[in-house]
Amino acid sequence: MRTRPLKVALLGCGVVGSEVARIMTTHADDLAARIGAPVELAGVAVRRPDKVRGGIAPELITTDATALVKRGDIDVVVEVIGGIEPARTLITTAFEHGASVVSANKALLAQDGAGLYEAAARHGKDLYYEAAVAGAIPLIRPLRESLAGDKINRVMGIVNGTTNFILDKMDSTGAGYQEALDEATALGYAEADPTADVEGFDAAAKAAILAGIAFHTRVRLDDVYREGMTEVTAADFASAKRMGCTIKLLAICERAADGASVTARVHPAMIPLSHPLASVREAYNAVFVEAEAAGRLMFYGPGAGGAPTASAVLGDVVAVCRNRLNEATGPGESAYAQLPVSSMGEVVTRYHISLDVADKPGVLAQVATVFAEHGVSIDTVRQQGKDGEASLVVVTHRAPDAALSGTVEALRKLDTVRGVASIMRVEGE
Amino acid sequence: MRTRPLKVALLGCGVVGSEVARIMTTHADDLAARIGAPVELAGVAVRRPDKVRGGIAPELITTDATALVKRGDIDVVVEVIGGIEPARTLITTAFEHGASVVSANKALLAQDGAGLYEAAARHGKDLYYEAAVAGAIPLIRPLRESLAGDKINRVMGIVNGTTNFILDKMDSTGAGYQEALDEATALGYAEADPTADVEGFDAAAKAAILAGIAFHTRVRLDDVYREGMTEVTAADFASAKRMGCTIKLLAICERAADGASVTARVHPAMIPLSHPLASVREAYNAVFVEAEAAGRLMFYGPGAGGAPTASAVLGDVVAVCRNRLNEATGPGESAYAQLPVSSMGEVVTRYHISLDVADKPGVLAQVATVFAEHGVSIDTVRQQGKDGEASLVVVTHRAPDAALSGTVEALRKLDTVRGVASIMRVEGE
Ligand SMILES: NC(=O)c1ccc[n+]([C@@H]2O[C@H](COP(=O)([O-])OP(=O)(O)OC[C@H]3O[C@@H](n4cnc5c(N)ncnc54)[C@H](OP(=O)(O)O)[C@@H]3O)[C@@H](O)[C@H]2O)c1
Ligand SMILES: NC(=O)c1ccc[n+]([C@@H]2O[C@H](COP(=O)([O-])OP(=O)(O)OC[C@H]3O[C@@H](n4cnc5c(N)ncnc54)[C@H](OP(=O)(O)O)[C@@H]3O)[C@@H](O)[C@H]2O)c1
Repeated sequence: MRTRPLKVALLGCGVVGSEVARIMTTHADDLAARIGAPVELAGVAVRRPDKVRGGIAPELITTDATALVKRGDIDVVVEVIGGIEPARTLITTAFEHGASVVSANKALLAQDGAGLYEAAARHGKDLYYEAAVAGAIPLIRPLRESLAGDKINRVMGIVNGTTNFILDKMDSTGAGYQEALDEATALGYAEADPTADVEGFDAAAKAAILAGIAFHTRVRLDDVYREGMTEVTAADFASAKRMGCTIKLLAICERAADGASVTARVHPAMIPLSHPLASVREAYNAVFVEAEAAGRLMFYGPGAGGAPTASAVLGDVVAVCRNRLNEATGPGESAYAQLPVSSMGEVVTRYHISLDVADKPGVLAQVATVFAEHGVSIDTVRQQGKDGEASLVVVTHRAPDAALSGTVEALRKLDTVRGVASIMRVEGE
Repeated sequence: MRTRPLKVALLGCGVVGSEVARIMTTHADDLAARIGAPVELAGVAVRRPDKVRGGIAPELITTDATALVKRGDIDVVVEVIGGIEPARTLITTAFEHGASVVSANKALLAQDGAGLYEAAARHGKDLYYEAAVAGAIPLIRPLRESLAGDKINRVMGIVNGTTNFILDKMDSTGAGYQEALDEATALGYAEADPTADVEGFDAAAKAAILAGIAFHTRVRLDDVYREGMTEVTAADFASAKRMGCTIKLLAICERAADGASVTARVHPAMIPLSHPLASVREAYNAVFVEAEAAGRLMFYGPGAGGAPTASAVLGDVVAVCRNRLNEATGPGESAYAQLPVSSMGEVVTRYHISLDVADKPGVLAQVATVFAEHGVSIDTVRQQGKDGEASLVVVTHRAPDAALSGTVEALRKLDTVRGVASIMRVEGE
């Protein structure tokens, strides 16, 4: 074993960074044995230098992250600051000064993964980011290495723990969205400003990253259709239950049936209770992968949290350190397929539409005609009437999203349709 | 991209090998793009040269596997013959002649993984074997790479599809073992001679491989406690149901509570229906991993079959080819921890014991005394009497296996105990 240690610079020492530092210290011998050389924490960049950070030698702490990544003797920079800047500049500066990078920063990778990969390749360095998607769950490595000999057709998963916690509460207790969100906040599962989670921004970033890897194609954050879950109601859950379904916020990356294009999207969807994703409870994450030869795989585990995320970061640190000892680099960006990314209108799926209608004869016939005119074929209809008001729940066969949008627009113009109470996609047969 | 192709020699062209050849041909462009150089099927060794093998150029077929691996221009040898010899000699010969090796051979790896790793290291070559455990499910790579920065405490899984199919049938239809086995055979899920599966030999080989990787310790096949599932009865399933459990054949690799030793074992066990492994149906495989930082992870998918297994093989082929272009090697054997492997007697778990007893007063007191004398504490007892005969079902708290064996031996000596109808471990709380 080499005795000269490999040097790790830690940028950020918050929820994730503090756990990375702790494990590096407490498990130093194991890491050394697995890497083939000791690893040393060479510096820790933070914003607030005076905060007490147990277990970290005070002289390692700095507020000058730039100077740390420019030192020139750093082997691996671990970026767990988050956000776009200064993280991006620090990462590219790290490459310029000879370091490889491990990051957990989904926002940055989704926004500018290509630029970071290019910088890494230009300097012959590694960029690893297992922790950026689904926390501790090995997913990036299985997709880009284990399935490298296969053709991935679909990645569908629960990749945001906060929203899964909220939806699970709504499902199990009958609570409304606000009540479930309040509970999630009180228990620390939701942040004070939950927008990034509940509006699907966090999941969309992960969908962009997953689609890019799965389809060997650059998928930008803007390519991802995004719908949050703040409009999901207790009534939707009741409807879902009647169909033998539950509701999950899903990130779905798909290859079109003809293989010539791909799509990536995030939205709430009904899935059958028999689907393995339906039983993913609380803040857990799980991702289903369908590949041509491998078939259906599922990966399940904690999607966030300091220690789980640090586990993923350290797996990458070990890999990058081994690569450095080998004077090699791991797989870089793979975007050779260059498939076009289609818009949401071209996605083909099923729909559950709930309409408030006038309770009089002929309404169903009118509604059915609108669906037919738009080429959306109906699977089942359920009518429920009370006091002159009635509701009509339509579940469709598979149809393009654009055709459904057209249908809904036309339905809204019918005199007999008082309102469209909810539209939800149905996934996972 | 390099234009000179990397050369792959395929040893064996049966269920798995024929799929490897097919995918290499049909997906040649994708493989080339992902590797950074084309890959070429340079030769295919089989036993019966005259068998029609669709899609493979006849001039590639040979019965002289030894000459093929000795050619000297082969980059990667894919061994999918199976069994100990000639597979072992072919693999070591391949290393000697400059090739790296991808194998799906669990039997050989469990029996002599250390020797193969040594040969690979001696010649600076790679030995990859993702397909050897749980077919298409990425498991070896996540354990040895993604979790390389973590401490794995437990690996527990369903790693044999045949037995899971049989147990699932028994559970869902109330069938006995023989009836369920017959159905599995008729449907092609069980081989004509099912011994390796139903007696747990196949799962034990996988347990040895998984324990070795998880605990960075050599675990030999002989170190694995093994009990098949041929004795599991419909009555056991009925008992399990009453406890809210089902029965699975599990491979369990554990670190002792004090961390100073490890165990590996394969046996049928009751697990609660709420446990994720309980809902693994038909011939699917799934493996639960508990790590200190990552928490509980699960990996699920098809554990066998030509195409799924070929997917895993080709993922390894891509990795090994990339390593060759990098003039590097991937992670080798990691056995630095050298933990002692304890015997089954030291395993601590819970038990479900079903006794046929005389239906008279005082029997329960006698039985309870025997448990107490052996330090096995009882959780619940259920008594059922009919026609002078009675049965007593005891579920214990956690106790060492040796203490339970002692208890059972003493119980058998009691006049009032007519027989021990079944003993089954209870796992997965
Ligand atoms: N938390 C999770 O469960 C989780 C899961 C997966 C991925 N991630 C990702 O991991 C990253 C870190 O998340 P986190 O939860 O650990 O964040 P956090 O708790 O907010 O920690 C951020 C750290 O960065 C430091 N920092 C902020 N701006 C800085 C600057 N300009 N220069 C130097 N240091 C600076 C902070 O310093 P102070 O300590 O002085 O404030 C703090 O130590 C994010 O990209 C996040 O998306 C997190
Ligand atoms: N089948 C699965 O689902 C599965 C899953 C995971 C792992 N595996 C592992 O994969 C390996 C292969 O399994 P399989 O199911 O593909 O086996 P298989 O269908 O029996 O194929 C074995 C192949 O090896 C050839 N062969 C046998 N002896 C040979 C010799 N001495 N020299 C050259 N070729 C020889 C056979 O030639 P002929 O074609 O001329 O008979 C045949 O092509 C085994 O280690 C198995 O444990 C299989």
